[in-house]
Formats: sequence, C-alpha cells, structure tokens
Amino acid sequence: MDRSITWDDGAIVAVDQRALPHAYRTLRITGTGQLIEAIQELAIRGAPALGVAGALGVALIARTAPDHRTATEEAERLAGARPTAVNLARGVHGALGLLGRGPDAVLAHALDLLADDERINREASARAADLVLRLCERRPLRLLTHCNTGRLATVAWGTALGTIRTLAEAGHVGEVLAGETRPLLQGARLTTWELAEAGIPYRLCADSAGPFAIGSGLVDCVLVGADRVAANGDVANKIGTYALAVAAARQRIPFIVVAPESTVDESTPDGARIVIEERGADEVTSFGGRSTATPGSAVYNPAFDVTPADLVTAVVTETRVLS
Amino acid sequence: MDRSITWDDGAIVAVDQRALPHAYRTLRITGTGQLIEAIQELAIRGAPALGVAGALGVALIARTAPDHRTATEEAERLAGARPTAVNLARGVHGALGLLGRGPDAVLAHALDLLADDERINREASARAADLVLRLCERRPLRLLTHCNTGRLATVAWGTALGTIRTLAEAGHVGEVLAGETRPLLQGARLTTWELAEAGIPYRLCADSAGPFAIGSGLVDCVLVGADRVAANGDVANKIGTYALAVAAARQRIPFIVVAPESTVDESTPDGARIVIEERGADEVTSFGGRSTATPGSAVYNPAFDVTPADLVTAVVTETRVLS
Repeated sequence: MDRSITWDDGAIVAVDQRALPHAYRTLRITGTGQLIEAIQELAIRGAPALGVAGALGVALIARTAPDHRTATEEAERLAGARPTAVNLARGVHGALGLLGRGPDAVLAHALDLLADDERINREASARAADLVLRLCERRPLRLLTHCNTGRLATVAWGTALGTIRTLAEAGHVGEVLAGETRPLLQGARLTTWELAEAGIPYRLCADSAGPFAIGSGLVDCVLVGADRVAANGDVANKIGTYALAVAAARQRIPFIVVAPESTVDESTPDGARIVIEERGADEVTSFGGRSTATPGSAVYNPAFDVTPADLVTAVVTETRVLS
Repeated sequence: MDRSITWDDGAIVAVDQRALPHAYRTLRITGTGQLIEAIQELAIRGAPALGVAGALGVALIARTAPDHRTATEEAERLAGARPTAVNLARGVHGALGLLGRGPDAVLAHALDLLADDERINREASARAADLVLRLCERRPLRLLTHCNTGRLATVAWGTALGTIRTLAEAGHVGEVLAGETRPLLQGARLTTWELAEAGIPYRLCADSAGPFAIGSGLVDCVLVGADRVAANGDVANKIGTYALAVAAARQRIPFIVVAPESTVDESTPDGARIVIEERGADEVTSFGGRSTATPGSAVYNPAFDVTPADLVTAVVTETRVLS
C-alpha cells in the first residue's frame, strides 16, 4: 500500500494533506522549520503519522545540526509543534535518545518505526474488526467514523479507518457515515477520498448529524482513533468525538477507539491532564479566505476533546483490547 | 425593535438572511413563487417568521389569484415549501380559512399575527428567563445556543435568543457560546450578528465543540428554539440540537426549548411522526460554490433532528412551561 510518509535520500517526503481531495501532491522536507510548519498547518497530521514524522525529523536534525545542543533544541521545538497527540513527542524523544550514537543510528531507528507502522495498524485493525463482529449482530454493518484515521493519518492502512478497511475486505460493511470534521474538514476531504479510493460505500454528514444518526438507530458501531489515551482510559481525540461517545452510550452501541500502543500514555493519569490545543479563530470564522461570521467574533476552537473512559467500550491496540 | 418581516403596500418585505452578516438588505416579495423560493433558499427562515410569512403569503394570494380554487392550490404549495416547521402550514391554513371573507379579511388576520409576534416572544422569553434564573445558580450565566432563534427567526425579539436578550438586559449573561450550525451556518452568520448588535458577549464554536463545552462544565444552560413540538413533548429543531440535549442530560444542566404556542402541534403524537426535511448534498459537499469533499460523495443531510421529551427540561411558550 502507498505510504503517506517516507524517507528519500535525506528528505522526508509526505502527502500534502491540505491539497486533498482535489490534488494529490507530495512535500519534500529537508529542514526542521519546514517540518514544523507542515505539522502546524496539518499538511502532515494524524497521531501515528506524527510519531513517524517526529522520528524522521530528528534524523534530519542529526544530519544537519552543528552540535548536540543545537540538535536537542531543534528537536524539542519539533516535539512541541502540536501538544495533544503524544505520538509526536514520543517519536522525537525516542529518536533523540540515539543522537549520541550518530546520525545513521537515528535514521535507522526512524526507518524501523516507519516500516513497523503498517504492520501495527493491520494488527490493531484485525483485533478491532474481530471485536466489532463480536459486539454487533447486524450484517452488513453500518459504521460511523470521525476525522481521518486512515492511511493518510498513518504511514499506511490506518487505525479506525483501517478497521473499516479490514471489515470491508471481509464483506461486512454496508455503509460508513463520515463526519465532515469541522473546522478543517478532514472527514470531508480525506476520509471520503480514502473510502472512495477503497470502494467502500459511504455518506458524508455534518458533524452534528452524527449523534442524531446514532440516536435514530442508523449506526451499529462508532469507530474513532486517538491522539492520546490516558492511564485511566480517557481518550483525547479530534473535537466531536465526545458528542459521538455520549450519543453511542445513550443508544447502547459500541464506541471503539483504535490506536497504536504508542498513543497510550501511562504518564498522563487522566484526561484532565491532557493539554488540549486551541487553534486560531480564523479556522471557524472564515472559509478559503472568505469571512463566514460576523467580523470580530471571538471563537472557542479546541482542536480535540476528551472522552471519559466510562463512555468508551474499548481501546484496541496492536497488542491488546483495553475495556 | 426592527421587524425582520413586514407588509408594505401589497408586498412582503423581509430581511434577506442569505446576505448576512456581510450585507443587510431586504427582499420585496409580490408573488407566491418568489415567496416559496425565498423560503426554500432560507432567505426567510425560523419557525415563527415562517408562520407569519405563510399568512402574509395567503394575503398576497387572496389579492391576486383569479378564483378560490387557484388560491387554495397556491396556498397549499406554499404550505408545503418546507415540511418540518409546523408554523408555516399553520400560518397558511389559518389565513386560508378566511379566504371566503375576502382579501381584506385575510390581510387583517395576517397583520394581527405579525403584530402579535413580538409580544408573544417577549412573554415566552420572560417566562423562560425566570426559569433559567431559578434552575441555574451561577452568575453571570454561561449560556449555549444553536442555530438562530433571534429577531431574524421571528418578527422581532426572538425565542431562545430572545430569552438570552431578556437575561442580558437584566445583567445576568456572562457569555453565550453559539454553535456555527452547519451546514448553512445560521449560528455563525446570524446569531453572532444579533449578539454583536445587542452587545452581548459571545464566542462562536464548531457544532461538535458544543457538547464538549457542556461536558467540560463551561455551560450553565442550553437554550434552543423549536420547529415543531409533538404532543408528547418531543422536539424537532435544527440538526445538532439532539447532540446538545444528550450532552446536557449527562452533565445534568437544564436544556430549555423556547417557542410560541403555535409551534406545539397536538395533532402530531410524537417525534417519530415528524417529517424531517432532507436537503441537498451540495450544502455539505461545497462552500460558496467551491467543492470541499471528494467529488461524487453521497450525503446524509437532515435539516432537523428530534430530541425526545426525556432529554428536555422544559418547553416554554408565551402561556406555559411544559416540563
């Protein structure tokens, strides 16, 4: 399967996710500043992809920084580019630990992460698909997902959307309902693109229609990814996840989180300690440079929310099911 | 207070809500086809405003239709222009009942409805504001609303947003969180415009952030309008209302619906019998004529949802509080 992020002769090459679904193009990244900008503008996004990008970023830094101290400083800037997904900081710090062994050791480590990602996602997806088939009686399944957790959010295959791929390959998916994921429309732009590419039937909806679809009995199971799973099982994920979880709990349908082990953060005791990134007002007050709200409007724009563990049926990783 | 819809020398004059917040302009409507188009394109919208528009529309028809049968047919087309809000059909049928008494009787009836609307909204708002102050201890209040239920959705003052005006005049409103209301952004375009005009502090948010704000303890009370209240208390309102109600119930904060008596429909036994208008795919897949999703995407685009009575703290009208 095509990789959304790779290493090519001293550069990180990544699909530019800002351009999809209308253009498929790649970015060639050779410096830390350029990588941070790509991450902050969501050209590279998705917790697992950010983890790999963090490690590859340190590989870049190790090759170019004049000394260990400068390299560490640059790496810390990269680790802090976005605060909520634990994978980015983990990817950076894991690679940084090898800095003393030289640039080749750092690169080898980053390339190992890159190579492992698809296998990890396929394993987590297989485990999650088994769970869905066990918990839901109806066939074919009507699944709801939010944001993008597919091959674009990872190196390949995907987590929650990977699970949908696995279920679809086995002929079990009747329809996927995809939330558009305001404000940046990752669902409308990226998830529909992946579903169309994979030939999986879907309908796109406004995010606020997802809970009503659940409440109306149109959904058998909700599948989402995660940006950080706290030690107590609370889950930080794209804003809108909480609303779906509350609706799923009322309807008594499974709400399943699929994520690699690298997203589980035992050092964060609970969701209250997760830093939620607040992004700029213009994401909500304008579209394509055009104002869509009353000029001067203040905005509440958390990029993520936290779903308490009691609303989560299970967190599924490549090695276990946490219920 | 300025009226969003009026009668002027043989024409309906209404604020064109498609142009706000960037331009404030009025439409002058002299024919049924023009009125139906204005309603279907949401130039005129909001359940109470639609009720008055329906009655004024029959006044137009009564002056121009060649015979009783043609008038009735035109009026029925108007009544069916949008199916969910009961007020439109009620406004049409109430006026139609006077057709035999001549165009002046129809117009006098429609002008009575027009004149009554602000008083009705102020009375419902006063009653709802009392209830909010009784149910919520915190001052100043942090209120959340959805879609637009202000003077633009009515002739003047508003229902849920009217209640917020009433509370703000008494100095009790700290902040209003306004959901943008995808896909057509009535919250971003209209509610922020009214709040700014009234000098009430607010923040705009993506709809999916509303339930999380509630779950995070940032909201004391949710206030929304209604397009139809069934006999059992189920409430049809703008898509996104259900998600807020489920979150409010989990958080144990009041979820209050403010609407005129004309929105209560005793002939609809429960929410399952309410026809939910599904609107076009392009509302979700494009913005300002620009595609925002994968071409060919199918869409689930219900314009309204139904909130079951058990999630509603109270429906407040100009004459009573239904709990």
